[in-house]
Amino acid sequence: MSTEPFDAVDVIRTKRDRGVLSPEQIDWVIDAYTRGAVADEQMSALGMAIFLNGMNRAEIARWTHAMIESGERLGFENLGVPTSDKHSTGGVGDKITLPLAPLVAAFGVAVPQLSGRGLGHTGGTLDKLESIPGWRADLTNDEVFAQLRSVGAVICAAGPNLAPADKKLYALRDVTSIVDCVPLISSSIMSKKIAEGTDALVLDVKVGSGAFMKTLDDARELARTMVDLGTDAGVTTVALLTDMSTPLGLTAGNAVEVQESLDVLAGGGPSDVVDLTVALAVEMLAAAGRPRGEDEVRAALSDGRAMDRWRSMIAAQGGDVDAPLPVAHESEQVLAPADGVLSRLDALAVGVAAWRLGAGRARKEDPVQAGAGVVLHAKPGDVVRAGQPLLTLHTDTPERFARALEALDGGWDIAAPGTPVARTHVVIDRID
Amino acid sequence: MSTEPFDAVDVIRTKRDRGVLSPEQIDWVIDAYTRGAVADEQMSALGMAIFLNGMNRAEIARWTHAMIESGERLGFENLGVPTSDKHSTGGVGDKITLPLAPLVAAFGVAVPQLSGRGLGHTGGTLDKLESIPGWRADLTNDEVFAQLRSVGAVICAAGPNLAPADKKLYALRDVTSIVDCVPLISSSIMSKKIAEGTDALVLDVKVGSGAFMKTLDDARELARTMVDLGTDAGVTTVALLTDMSTPLGLTAGNAVEVQESLDVLAGGGPSDVVDLTVALAVEMLAAAGRPRGEDEVRAALSDGRAMDRWRSMIAAQGGDVDAPLPVAHESEQVLAPADGVLSRLDALAVGVAAWRLGAGRARKEDPVQAGAGVVLHAKPGDVVRAGQPLLTLHTDTPERFARALEALDGGWDIAAPGTPVARTHVVIDRID
Repeated sequence: MSTEPFDAVDVIRTKRDRGVLSPEQIDWVIDAYTRGAVADEQMSALGMAIFLNGMNRAEIARWTHAMIESGERLGFENLGVPTSDKHSTGGVGDKITLPLAPLVAAFGVAVPQLSGRGLGHTGGTLDKLESIPGWRADLTNDEVFAQLRSVGAVICAAGPNLAPADKKLYALRDVTSIVDCVPLISSSIMSKKIAEGTDALVLDVKVGSGAFMKTLDDARELARTMVDLGTDAGVTTVALLTDMSTPLGLTAGNAVEVQESLDVLAGGGPSDVVDLTVALAVEMLAAAGRPRGEDEVRAALSDGRAMDRWRSMIAAQGGDVDAPLPVAHESEQVLAPADGVLSRLDALAVGVAAWRLGAGRARKEDPVQAGAGVVLHAKPGDVVRAGQPLLTLHTDTPERFARALEALDGGWDIAAPGTPVARTHVVIDRID
Repeated sequence: MSTEPFDAVDVIRTKRDRGVLSPEQIDWVIDAYTRGAVADEQMSALGMAIFLNGMNRAEIARWTHAMIESGERLGFENLGVPTSDKHSTGGVGDKITLPLAPLVAAFGVAVPQLSGRGLGHTGGTLDKLESIPGWRADLTNDEVFAQLRSVGAVICAAGPNLAPADKKLYALRDVTSIVDCVPLISSSIMSKKIAEGTDALVLDVKVGSGAFMKTLDDARELARTMVDLGTDAGVTTVALLTDMSTPLGLTAGNAVEVQESLDVLAGGGPSDVVDLTVALAVEMLAAAGRPRGEDEVRAALSDGRAMDRWRSMIAAQGGDVDAPLPVAHESEQVLAPADGVLSRLDALAVGVAAWRLGAGRARKEDPVQAGAGVVLHAKPGDVVRAGQPLLTLHTDTPERFARALEALDGGWDIAAPGTPVARTHVVIDRID
C-alpha cells in the first residue's frame, strides 16, 4: 500500500471533470511532483486539464503558494533600502530590464532581478547580457546581497532552490503545449517573484501578436490575477498593460539589443523604449515608497547617472563594459518594394525571424548566437521609399536566412503614400 | 535540426485548440510514440486534450488504423472455417467469454479470442482462467492457429506485436485518468480486434454503474463508433448494449466465476448469464455467416457439446479440467437486516469489493488471488428474509474485509415486503 495521502489519478480526474482541487490536493501534487512521486506524464495530463478547464482564484493562490514552498525564500530586510523588481511576460525586442534596473538603482531603490532563460521567439534577458564579454549570470545568494549593497542592482539567473517545482513544471509545459494559460503563467511568474523576496513588483503584461496574451481581455485577466497574488502575499504589486503588436525599439536579438540599451542609457535611443523604461521606473519607485516624477527619472538617463550604475552593475558580474559587442558575420536586407507608409510590422514575425537567425533557442540546451537578430529601419507610421532597407537580418550561419525570411513573409504592410497610420502608445492601461 | 516531419508540441496544440488532427499528424504521432520519439508526457497531454475536446469520426478511424499499423496483423484465411470473436467493454461478474467461446466453436465457427489483462474493478478473462491449475495464457501465433484447427476456440493473451502502440497507450491512460472516453476506448478495442484478423465481431457494450459508460446515450455512441470502425475495416461487426447496473450472475472474482461458467456449460447456471451467452452466440454465428436459432444454440449447452469443447480448449492450454478449483481461506457474510425485496445491488460496489478482496489488481505487476471474490445469494427482485446471507466475501487475506465491506456500504437496498421490483432484461438494444 502506498503511504501517499492522495492518488494522482484522482487529482487529475477531479480537474478533468471540472471540479475544484482542494488545498490539500494542490499542496500534495506539487510536493509529490517535485519529489518525483507524481510522474511527468501525470503532471502534463493535469496541466492540460487545468489549461482547458481552468482554476479559480483560490486554486491559483494555493498552487502559487505550494510552488513557493517547494524551495527557499529570500528576503532583503537587512539591506537598509527598499527593493523593487519588474517582470515582463515577454515580448519581441524587450530589452527594457537592461536600462531600467540601473535607472531605478540610481534613485536608491535596490533592484534584485532574478531571471529565467528565454525559450521560443521572446528573447531572454540573460542571453542578451551574455553577449557582453566576460559577464556571468550565475551568482551565489551571498554575491547577490553583496552586489545589491554595493551597486543597488543585480540581474542574474535564479538559483536552483528558488521555486524548484516551477522550474520542473516550466520545462514540462514547454514540451506539452500548456504554456499560455492564465493559471499556469500567473502562478509560475508570481511563485518566483514572491520567493525572491522583493518588497515591490511592477508587472509589464504584454498584449498583441508578439505576446502570450493576444487580446486585451486576456492580458487584463492575467494582470489582475498576478496583482492579486502579489498583494495577497504582501508584495506591493502593480501592472502596466503594454503594446506588443510591433517590436519594442529597433532591435530584436542579443548584442543588438544591448547596443540599443546603451543608446538609451546615453540619453538617446528609440522613443518607445525610453518611454516604457521611464514609465516602469516611475512605477517601481512609487511601489517601493520612493515616488519620483517622470521628469526627474528621465533626467537620470540624460545626465549619465543611470549609465554609471549600469557600468558598475556589469563590471560587478565580470563584464567588460568597454569591450566591443559581438557582430554577426553575415547580414541580409529586406527592402521596401514601393513608396508609402509602413502601416504594420508584426512583432511575432520579427520575433520568429530573430529566433530562427540564432538569437533564441528551441531547446534549453541549445546555444544562442550573440550577434544574431533583426534590426528595424522603420516603425509603423514611418514614411518609406521604394528600395530603402526595412529590416537587416544578422546571423553567423547564412543557411538560416531562408527560414527567417519565410517568417517575415506577410509580416508587414506598406500603405499608399499619405495614408494616415496611428502610432500606438506603448502603455495601454494600468492595474493596481 | 530534427528529421521528424512534425513536432509533438504542434500536434498537441492543434487538439488543445479544438482543431482536427490531419491523417499525417495522427500516423506520425502514433508511430513516433511507439518509437519513443514522442514522450509519455506529450502523449498524456494529447490524450487529455482528446478526452476533453474529442475526435471526429475520421480522426478516430485514422487513429485506430495507425495503432493497427504499429504492429503485425494476423489472418485466418487458411483456416477453412469462418472466425467470430466477441469483446466486452468490461463489467462485474462478466465471465461470458468462458462458456461462449466453446459454445460457438461447437457450431463450427472458430473463436480466436486474444485478450488483455484486467485493471481496476472489472475482472480480466485471463485472470479468471488462470485459476485453473496448469492453464497458461501465453501462446505463440503457431499455437493459436493449431488450437483453432484442433479445438476451434482459443482464449489467450494478445502477443506483444499486436497493436503495440495501444499497449503502450493503454498503460499510460490508466495512470493519467484518460480511460473512459469514446475516441480512446473505441480505437483501443478495435485496433486490437481488427489486427487480430477475425472475420466477424460481436461487441458487448455494457451500460450502468459497473461499466465505463454510465448512460445509455454514451454506450450507444461507443457502440455506434466501434461498429462503424469494424465495418469500415471489413469486419462484420454488431453490438449488443447490455445491462451492467447489477453484477452478471451470482459471482464476481476468478475461480468463483469459472465455477459458475462450468454450471452454465453443464446446462444450469443463473438465467442472466445463460441468456446473455446464448444471445451473443446467436449474434456471433449469424455474423460469421452460419446463423442458428436460439433454441438450437441453447441445446448445445444442455447436451454437453459446449462442455466437450470447453474441456478440449482448457486441456490444449495445459489446464487440468478435473482438478478442484482454488478456494479462498477466509470468508465473511453480509446479512439482510430485514424482511423485504432486494431492490438494488450495485455492480460497481460489488466490483470494487471483489477487487479489494484480491480478485483484481491495482497495478499491472500485482498478483491476483485465485479464490478471492464475492458470491451473491440474491439478485434484484428476489425476496429476502432478515438474517439471510445476501453476499459472501472470499479472500486469503482477511485484513482486506474491512475495505471491501466499505465498498459495499450503500451498495444495496431492501424494499418493504411486497414492493414490486422490475427485473431488468440483460440485452437492452442491438446496433449493426
